[in-house]
Amino acid sequence: MSADWFRRRFLPRGPLPAPRPPRPRASPVPYRRPRFLRGSGSSSGPADASRRPDARPVRSPVRGRSLPWNAGYAEIINAEKSEFNEDQAACGKLCIRRCEFGVEEDQEWLTLCSEEFLTGHYWALFDGHGGPAAAILAANTLHSCLRRQLEAVVEGMVATQPPMHLSGRCICPSDPQFVEEKGIRTEDLVIGALESAFQECDEVIGRELEASGQVGGCTALVAMSLKGKLYVANAGDSRAILVRRDEVRPLSSEFTPETERQRIQQLAFIYPELLAGEFTRLEFPRRLKGDDLGQKVLFRDHHMSGWSYKCVEKSDLKYPLIHGQGRQARLLGTLAVSRGLGDHQLRVLDTNIQLKPFLLSVPQVTVLNMDQLEPQEEDVVVMATDGLWDVLSNEQVARLVRHFLPGNREDPHRFSELAKMLIRSTQGTDDSPIQEGQVSYDDVSVFVIPLHHQGQGHSSH
Amino acid sequence: MSADWFRRRFLPRGPLPAPRPPRPRASPVPYRRPRFLRGSGSSSGPADASRRPDARPVRSPVRGRSLPWNAGYAEIINAEKSEFNEDQAACGKLCIRRCEFGVEEDQEWLTLCSEEFLTGHYWALFDGHGGPAAAILAANTLHSCLRRQLEAVVEGMVATQPPMHLSGRCICPSDPQFVEEKGIRTEDLVIGALESAFQECDEVIGRELEASGQVGGCTALVAMSLKGKLYVANAGDSRAILVRRDEVRPLSSEFTPETERQRIQQLAFIYPELLAGEFTRLEFPRRLKGDDLGQKVLFRDHHMSGWSYKCVEKSDLKYPLIHGQGRQARLLGTLAVSRGLGDHQLRVLDTNIQLKPFLLSVPQVTVLNMDQLEPQEEDVVVMATDGLWDVLSNEQVARLVRHFLPGNREDPHRFSELAKMLIRSTQGTDDSPIQEGQVSYDDVSVFVIPLHHQGQGHSSH
Repeated sequence: MSADWFRRRFLPRGPLPAPRPPRPRASPVPYRRPRFLRGSGSSSGPADASRRPDARPVRSPVRGRSLPWNAGYAEIINAEKSEFNEDQAACGKLCIRRCEFGVEEDQEWLTLCSEEFLTGHYWALFDGHGGPAAAILAANTLHSCLRRQLEAVVEGMVATQPPMHLSGRCICPSDPQFVEEKGIRTEDLVIGALESAFQECDEVIGRELEASGQVGGCTALVAMSLKGKLYVANAGDSRAILVRRDEVRPLSSEFTPETERQRIQQLAFIYPELLAGEFTRLEFPRRLKGDDLGQKVLFRDHHMSGWSYKCVEKSDLKYPLIHGQGRQARLLGTLAVSRGLGDHQLRVLDTNIQLKPFLLSVPQVTVLNMDQLEPQEEDVVVMATDGLWDVLSNEQVARLVRHFLPGNREDPHRFSELAKMLIRSTQGTDDSPIQEGQVSYDDVSVFVIPLHHQGQGHSSH
Repeated sequence: MSADWFRRRFLPRGPLPAPRPPRPRASPVPYRRPRFLRGSGSSSGPADASRRPDARPVRSPVRGRSLPWNAGYAEIINAEKSEFNEDQAACGKLCIRRCEFGVEEDQEWLTLCSEEFLTGHYWALFDGHGGPAAAILAANTLHSCLRRQLEAVVEGMVATQPPMHLSGRCICPSDPQFVEEKGIRTEDLVIGALESAFQECDEVIGRELEASGQVGGCTALVAMSLKGKLYVANAGDSRAILVRRDEVRPLSSEFTPETERQRIQQLAFIYPELLAGEFTRLEFPRRLKGDDLGQKVLFRDHHMSGWSYKCVEKSDLKYPLIHGQGRQARLLGTLAVSRGLGDHQLRVLDTNIQLKPFLLSVPQVTVLNMDQLEPQEEDVVVMATDGLWDVLSNEQVARLVRHFLPGNREDPHRFSELAKMLIRSTQGTDDSPIQEGQVSYDDVSVFVIPLHHQGQGHSSH
């Protein structure tokens, strides 16, 4: 992506073109639930959920079907918020083949050895909006993008440190193979591959949705184990935490219009055209009214962490670029998240104002070194879509995990049982440990990944 | 500042105008050392420093002269790196007057009460480059900017929470005076005032330097006590840390081309014109050579935290936007810091490429709640320019502080003695606790601010 591309794509000189009406050239993305839920009862068709949340079924893989690392999974569909469950999940083994550098004359890559070189594991949650299509495409696609991106750099992961040149050979005698000063590590290549994979997947979704005349977007939260490390990549408002006996550690942070206020305001500052004169980029404590004109009111602009006062002008009365607080915060009055995949066609209702330039598909990646961690018997990673975290805090989830696991050591399916129990805790039922009134009507999907005896000792070759 | 202003200022349509030759309309900013060093010996003129670092004098205020909170100060001039000491310091009492809203009809501010309303204290270090002028102007000016910015919002600091409207009155009956959901605190107003003050000071420096035909820039590190809190605002590579008996806490982080790589690369991505075809915004492990053409080498772009490989094109052989590692890292081959004041005229040698669009004057602000901290006898804040931190780690400074203070309880001048001792520790003398070879030839300036019995109980009214 270049600056020119950005300008051509989002800053047309003349009046903005109307959004293209969908001209389906391909069949729509079929709705489905994750493959690993097969046989677990309840149809994969539209929700038949009742409005009474406690009547909604919690689904998890059938007993006997095991997920990577014996991870647990459970999900519940929303209370008719939409017809389909807009959450999607995927997991599996990630087989990275090693490609070796071919004949030098033609500078081409030849797959001299297509054997599996590295093995990783992959768990992913996608929370869709504007329809389930983007989340389904992401669940179908992101792991392939990731495999491809990792294979493109796997040669650089052979040595203890990535070499300056991918061929691993010095191109002139005085040149060291590694550039010590920068301290570039193998994990930096994996982080780079995750970043590239999210972007590639975003492009695929854009093409596929346009071809099938569909719309929508989704968040993406990925955990991937590779060479003794667990990578957590997040774009959106899902969350992963590490729960240990005496530690609760966030492994991701949420990207919403509020948490990314400065980045979003700055883009509107640089390209005011993106707001088409309909929005103000400034933040005020509430939407301003005619009465506020000429008054000095609290405000924040893109470069400010603190607040100041400004005299209200007429342009300040426009609808704010970011409006509302907490769960109600919206970007351009439209979207509750500021990173994710898809949404290429999304515009503000009844306008030509596009959301996409304000959205990032690039994830933030955190790395957990499993060798250093020395995971104990009941150490787990809990990954869940926002429906869980709206109702339960990290500490509440940790208490539930620590309470559940010791009493269920013998059950091979206990991590799915734990995931189901976490979801039931959001449904306001009698045995729920949370306060009355805190009930999630959203889709909720949960992975529980046990860390003990996993991922250490570099499962490569 | 608007986007239009930025484009007009930095993106001229035609060929770039040559830098205007200085046409002095005012006399040059006179060189001086801080007022509070008067009488402490050594002339205030050019450095007569010897090349042997241990022969250079360490200066601190004369015994009997006390700084706010009985803080200590010491400085040493560089070993002929430049003729003048480019560091500057300032400290003092900050008296904030309360202005009350005047007659409503003309909507003007009248100072009904010019009595002091709030009292704070202020300590600041400025590390100049390209001449001492910007640092001297900052030392002369920033506290006035800060007072002015605080007085502009002081009415909002009267209540426990800043009101939506500065007059403190609801403008329509249904409107609550405070906007509870946003949780805006008094300290957010102070942070906003610090941010505005740095920007105002930057503009003053730009005007003054242009008028006097001088050039240069400086970093700025400010500590300010107000209403029971200590605010630390930093733009540049100076550093402040809190040292307690069993805690070392950084109160600032450094802003250099390396720490702000993504912001700087992103600006070059948005406005490639800023690089005038002379630089590449991409980061490589080292500067590329002709031999690298066509090879796949490690690189990072603005949206990447991790690294990936790319095939080298001709444009990648240009000089990198950010080059070098650690202390050698330079922005556009020119500047070692990415935030600060001044540098309005600074261009890359022999080009018209301006540094200013890549520099931020806005500081990052951290807040220390003195009431919650309950400072003990030997708790201090150590503020110093980069000359100290190049040679001593936070932990080494903390060890020196903890070793020095208990044995010197009776000396009223002990915090200046401590500051002098810290500076001597960077000079490679015999009694230095640091390894041989780690010697600072830079200017070094140090404040040591004791926290015990200070700043609590809100010294207002």
